[in-house]
Order: sequence, then C-alpha cells, then structure tokens
Amino acid sequence: MCDACIMRTVAAKLGRRGVLAAVAAAAAAPAMAQPVRTAGISRVVDLTHALSPSFPTFGGSPAIEMEQVNVLAKDGYNMHRLSYVEHVGTHFDAPLHFSAGGAPVDAIPVAQLVCPLVVLDVRAKAAAEPDYQVTPEDIAAHEASHGRIPQGACLALNAGWDAHVGTPRFRNADAGGKLRFPGFRPDVAPLLLGRGAAGVAVDTLSLDHGSSPDFAFHVAWLGAGKWGLECAANLGQLPATGATIVAGAPKIAGGTGGPGRAIALA
Amino acid sequence: MCDACIMRTVAAKLGRRGVLAAVAAAAAAPAMAQPVRTAGISRVVDLTHALSPSFPTFGGSPAIEMEQVNVLAKDGYNMHRLSYVEHVGTHFDAPLHFSAGGAPVDAIPVAQLVCPLVVLDVRAKAAAEPDYQVTPEDIAAHEASHGRIPQGACLALNAGWDAHVGTPRFRNADAGGKLRFPGFRPDVAPLLLGRGAAGVAVDTLSLDHGSSPDFAFHVAWLGAGKWGLECAANLGQLPATGATIVAGAPKIAGGTGGPGRAIALA
Ligand SMILES: [Zn+2]
Ligand SMILES: [Zn+2]
Repeated sequence: MCDACIMRTVAAKLGRRGVLAAVAAAAAAPAMAQPVRTAGISRVVDLTHALSPSFPTFGGSPAIEMEQVNVLAKDGYNMHRLSYVEHVGTHFDAPLHFSAGGAPVDAIPVAQLVCPLVVLDVRAKAAAEPDYQVTPEDIAAHEASHGRIPQGACLALNAGWDAHVGTPRFRNADAGGKLRFPGFRPDVAPLLLGRGAAGVAVDTLSLDHGSSPDFAFHVAWLGAGKWGLECAANLGQLPATGATIVAGAPKIAGGTGGPGRAIALA
Repeated sequence: MCDACIMRTVAAKLGRRGVLAAVAAAAAAPAMAQPVRTAGISRVVDLTHALSPSFPTFGGSPAIEMEQVNVLAKDGYNMHRLSYVEHVGTHFDAPLHFSAGGAPVDAIPVAQLVCPLVVLDVRAKAAAEPDYQVTPEDIAAHEASHGRIPQGACLALNAGWDAHVGTPRFRNADAGGKLRFPGFRPDVAPLLLGRGAAGVAVDTLSLDHGSSPDFAFHVAWLGAGKWGLECAANLGQLPATGATIVAGAPKIAGGTGGPGRAIALA
C-alpha cells in the first residue's frame, strides 16, 4: 500500500484536523492482523482460491472478464465491471444447475450453508489414478476411523488437487482434450442423502470425475436439492472432523451457483 | 421443486438401480432443514439480500445483467452469464476502492473477515433524520451500555434501512436526485481505528450518508486498509454484542470489492 498516496487523498478529503486524528489513531492501532477473538474459533482457513482470468475452467475459456470503469485519480474511486459464467473459480453449484425446478442459489436455506465439515483424504488414490472416483467404501472406511458423518454436514474430498491449480495438471487434459481428475462415484449420493448431509465439496473442477460422460453425481446430488462446492482450496489444513464450513454461496436471485467465499472455522 | 422433473432427469442419467437407491435414501433422510449442530453456534442469520436487476443501486442503474447461456433440456445443465459493476447488492468495499495502492478484495487477510459483531441501533435517529450521521458520541454511548468494542471487531449500523429495500425509501432520492440515508460521520473512522476494528457494516447504500459531497468516511476508513459492507440485511435480528460475522467477501484478484455473502453466527 502506498501510504503517501493514501495520506494525500485523505488530506484532500478530511482536512487537517481529521488527518491528525486519523494518524494518531492509526499509530495507536497495532499493524498486525488480529488473532480471532471470537468464542470457540481459534483458526480461520480460507477454502477459496483467488479468481482471475487465468484461473483454470472446465471448458478452458478465460474464467472472468474485468474492466476498470472508474479510476481514483479521475473519479475519486476505483471500480470494475465483471463478466463471467456462473461456474468459475471456487464456486457453488445450486440444485437448479442440474435439475429442472431445483432451488436457485439464493433459495438455499442459510442454515444449510453452515455445516460440520468432514474431510476425506483421497490424496494417495488420486495420485495413483487421476480419474479416481470416491466410493461408498471410502466413506465407510472414513466413518470407521472418525465416526459417522453428522446430520447437516458437508463432506469434502481432499484429493490434493489445489496444489495443481497453477499448472496444466489441474485440468489434466489428455491429447484428445478429455479431462482427468478425481470426483464422487454416483452411488455415493444416496449414501450421503441417507446421512442427511447438506453439501459436498471437491478441490477439483467438478463433483464428478474429469470428463464424466453423464455427470451422474451432479444429477443425483443437486437433483435431491443439495449444494456442491468446486475448486475448494486448503482442505489439507483441516482435521478429518471438527471444523465448520461457512459456505458463502452468492445470493444471486435465480442463479444456478457461482463464485463465493468458502471459509472454515477450526 | 418439481420432484417429478428431477426424478425423470435422475432416471435418465443414473439408471434404474441408482434411482432406487437414491429414492430409498431420500425417504430415510428428514425433509426439514437441519438445525445447526456445530459447537457454539445456535443460530445463523443471513446478512445478505438477494441480488436481482431491480435491487436498488447508488447510481440508479440496474444492479446486474443475467443471461441464460445453457438450458437443461438442451445442454444437460442450466447456467447464466452475469455482468455487473462491483458495488451492487449486499457487497464489500476493499481498501482499493477508495485508495491508490490499497489492498484489493482478494488481499484482505481471511482472519479479518471473521469478527466479533457489534450492532449499533440508530433506528430512532434515522427515522427522525434520514441523512443522520453516526457520531463518536453514539459509539461512546453504545460502549457505556455494552462494553468496549473488541479488537478485530466489525461495527454494524442498524438504521432499520433493510426494511425499505423494496421501496423508493431505500435510495430516498429528493426532487433534485440527492439521496438521503444514514451513514458514518467521518470522525468515527479514527475512533474505530483506535479500537483496532477490522470492518464496518451499514444497512444502507453507502458507508457515508446519502449523497455525501466527499465520501470522507470511505476515504479515511478504506484508506487505512479496512473493509466495509454495504446494504447489509437483518441486523435487527442480532444482539448488540456477542455474535460473529463471517464476512464472505468475493475473492476476485485485483477487485475493489463486490457482492458476497455475509453471515452472522449467534
Ligand atoms: Zn459448478
Ligand atoms: Zn461499495
């Protein structure tokens, strides 16, 4: 941050007395980021990648267009116009994305966006087989070690894929353009419905593996009125159970999903 | 939700065996929204309005353009293209919005987005004087009743303005086009900097009151590297102190802010 620029701008707007008060207050305030002082929360983990034009997309197009429409020096403030299709970046899938008459993203009850977070580590299997599909047996093994997936949970797949986000390995397209990355096998959907889970998250581009021929997990899961999160970041920083996800889906009226802010509290 | 539509789509994709399993699981799962089972959180309050083209904007233009680019019946999924300027709907202001070299929205440390939430009720003053500017004395009176604003907090103004969001009263433009609604008086900025606050929220269109001639609060607050939230909803459902805000700012690389998802945990 250019302190001199800021102070010139502030000086022009606030006048001398205001500037002196602001400077005194800023000097008194600590410069370091504050630890979280909220009861019961000791750590905040950002599950969201920064979204830029070069962020990898399922289809391969640029993720977002961004045009500066106001400039501080001329207009007194900076502002951009953004344009993107909904399913780019770390983003949510609403039921409407894959179901006729399914809930749009603004109609997901907010209580279903704050969930116990269960993290399933499939890094070894994903490293061995990029198109790995998580099975009901993987879930059963996780439950045997860590307990039953609680009501209203979000089950997140940690495939270790966020580490590839800046490289071609994230989309992992073969010579014919087929993508290869892990996802959920469709028969995991009824199992999670039986647990009363609210959402699922993946650190890959799709709830289904790679270039799935039928998006059958999407159809079953979103079709049952549940939400999904794709391209999650930093799942490896969380315990298998015990954290909470605050799934900040965008509240766009009638939207099928979109980039939002997913944050975990541990 | 059209259950028949969903089941037809699921049937086409999953096959008979998958459908039977999904139906059995859905029947076993409770249909009601689940209560929040996360330790220490008993209530989730959505601080976000739904964003649609008709949502009121500072400048008066439509808030968002939304075009359906994929249709389920033809493409297998629904998807829209969105286009908007960053400062529409329930949205965040990053330091960059009003300061040369200030942090863009993706660079705000995530720990500064999870904050003790202090709610200042100025409804009576705002009802009497729409252009009311909250003063340091208002903050002092609140602290005398409810305790000192804690380090890292978000101070939110409840002006009762979210109740006007569907009516002309929200912008409250006079015959000459000047807007009249409450905001912060600029000398509140150094006070809050002295408290080490991380962010502020208003339920109106701007951190400054109405058609402020100089946006002096924006300049002082964002210029000091802090964030703001505008057009917050439902602040009246929260206690004066004790709740936590999860301020889901959009993580757009280089952005000056934008619509996100603000959620309070009480
Ligand atoms: Zn998606
Ligand atoms: Zn703004």
